[in-house]
Amino acid sequence: MKTCKMSVLGFGVAGKAFARILLANREQMIKDKGVEPIVISITTGSRGCLYNPDGLDLAEAVRQLEEEGKFNPEYKDYAVLDSMTVAETIDYDVLLELTPLNIFTGQPAADHIRTALKRGKHAVSANKGPLAWYYKELKDLAKANSCCFFFETTVMAGVPIFDMADSSMQYCKVDKIEGILNATTNFILKEMGKGTSYEDTLKMGRERGFLEADPSMDTDGWDATAKLTVLMNVLMDANLTPDKVDRTGISGVTPEEIKAAAERGNIIKLMCRGSKNADGTITAKVAPEEVPANNSFANDELVAVVSIYTDLLGKLDIMQYGLETSVTGYGVFIDVCRVLDWMSVR
Amino acid sequence: MKTCKMSVLGFGVAGKAFARILLANREQMIKDKGVEPIVISITTGSRGCLYNPDGLDLAEAVRQLEEEGKFNPEYKDYAVLDSMTVAETIDYDVLLELTPLNIFTGQPAADHIRTALKRGKHAVSANKGPLAWYYKELKDLAKANSCCFFFETTVMAGVPIFDMADSSMQYCKVDKIEGILNATTNFILKEMGKGTSYEDTLKMGRERGFLEADPSMDTDGWDATAKLTVLMNVLMDANLTPDKVDRTGISGVTPEEIKAAAERGNIIKLMCRGSKNADGTITAKVAPEEVPANNSFANDELVAVVSIYTDLLGKLDIMQYGLETSVTGYGVFIDVCRVLDWMSVR
Repeated sequence: MKTCKMSVLGFGVAGKAFARILLANREQMIKDKGVEPIVISITTGSRGCLYNPDGLDLAEAVRQLEEEGKFNPEYKDYAVLDSMTVAETIDYDVLLELTPLNIFTGQPAADHIRTALKRGKHAVSANKGPLAWYYKELKDLAKANSCCFFFETTVMAGVPIFDMADSSMQYCKVDKIEGILNATTNFILKEMGKGTSYEDTLKMGRERGFLEADPSMDTDGWDATAKLTVLMNVLMDANLTPDKVDRTGISGVTPEEIKAAAERGNIIKLMCRGSKNADGTITAKVAPEEVPANNSFANDELVAVVSIYTDLLGKLDIMQYGLETSVTGYGVFIDVCRVLDWMSVR
Repeated sequence: MKTCKMSVLGFGVAGKAFARILLANREQMIKDKGVEPIVISITTGSRGCLYNPDGLDLAEAVRQLEEEGKFNPEYKDYAVLDSMTVAETIDYDVLLELTPLNIFTGQPAADHIRTALKRGKHAVSANKGPLAWYYKELKDLAKANSCCFFFETTVMAGVPIFDMADSSMQYCKVDKIEGILNATTNFILKEMGKGTSYEDTLKMGRERGFLEADPSMDTDGWDATAKLTVLMNVLMDANLTPDKVDRTGISGVTPEEIKAAAERGNIIKLMCRGSKNADGTITAKVAPEEVPANNSFANDELVAVVSIYTDLLGKLDIMQYGLETSVTGYGVFIDVCRVLDWMSVR
């Protein structure tokens, strides 16, 4: 039996959700693919690390984090490791880059992936940074080393945009993308539409646990910008970086503007727009926009939506409603499935 | 260089659109995949057949049909053949089943595909019939013979539903599907909403060329029923046949009902609904329904839409807007791409 040895960098929401899906489907995957997926290391920033070259007990790893808040230093597989050392030295088949995002540099995640690919190892990234800043370089590196490089989780979590583009939209040209890609600003604008002030909305979101102490990555449009950049790099070969996107956040949107828009039958959304111009240049913009209330983009139940304009398939919309953590974990899981599929026939 | 030899059964709108896309991308495909796709036979019901074991001139084949209305009996590769003889005897790698649909039996298309798979040949079907009537048998046969069996075109043309389910939604369970799957009834109901009578709408559709002389397959709900059956068979393992679907067409819908619905803020659409019940049984229904006008399903620009309810990804919507013939040809093309991908690593 072939094995697929995984080293996991970062083990937050996505990592734990991935582990649960993997544990639930592991036996069937082995039957289907003839490859046994095993996790050999998990590194975290502040909750310790685990390492066992023969495979960790993944259920036990999840249990320790959930019940004890960190890995137990007395546990037999406890190890003192850091992510770069793992990327450089451990004998994994796939590196799973799940560390926290640095939206302004894509580092150190990009270096982790670069190291793995240069060693001829596959890489899976749930981290948008490396894709937003170094997509072309990393893609070329993966190709040159005959490695898989998957990143489904980076936009719309596990909703299959990139696998679809790669597998099901071959030779289709994309010339325009429109989307609403950030769930936090959706929530804030929706609450403000009910008359709540911007400050009170932030407070409520923090109390409910889905706004960070500093939500500026969302409210300033950086998260949406990074996602638009990744979409355009992958689907349109845009070779774009986030700093080149014309970006306006939502912190300037007032309840009065939302009310005035509603009187015109419109709803304000943080829209992402990217297109290829006739001269080959590209335009990329993230900004609040009025959307007609009867437009499918205005649907309040939506978590995210993307419209893809193509030459051969016309226009397609893909809409995401699920916000469960399983959706994020599934993105990592499906990337791992695709690596196993790759390994199973080679 | 490996070759992938294709025998094409039926060469109407889908076949010609497929040929155009293949011709436009052929050189790049050979570079990318290291497999050369060649068409070795084309059979039609009434426009003659072509056969050359070394490969036909596909551009010339398309030209003859478009300019002369049929294959030229004097042409060097003209042949007297029938589809079943091709399926049974010719040395192809992939059989492309593009013959006209028999919605009540799935034949003779199912026999063509069965024959190919039993011979260990790959099969691509743009014909819904075999999928609606014999999906499980054909899928098992393909698996037992290690063959590809793809059919992207059968629902929402080339919009990647089945490849997505197969590749990007692995181990995800689907427990409900909702959709508007038939473009013709969309058109008729929309026109009737403007006050046109049912009879005048049919007349207009025929004059514009997108309604058949007998549109009853669409208006009686058979086309939508076959598509719902295929979706449920593939995504939900429903093992359903079209005769088991609770089916009501739109011929009973009156302008008065449409007007009354509009006064309630609703639009009438031919809805398809399929679900798995708690006891493991399934429910499948096609019928006209009132949809709130502000619902994304009510969008008049839509050609088709499907909502997929899953355990791990929550709910997803996929919306198709493009009605160009390229969308249909692309479904066949992407299935062929996937066969080439399969061959390229084996």
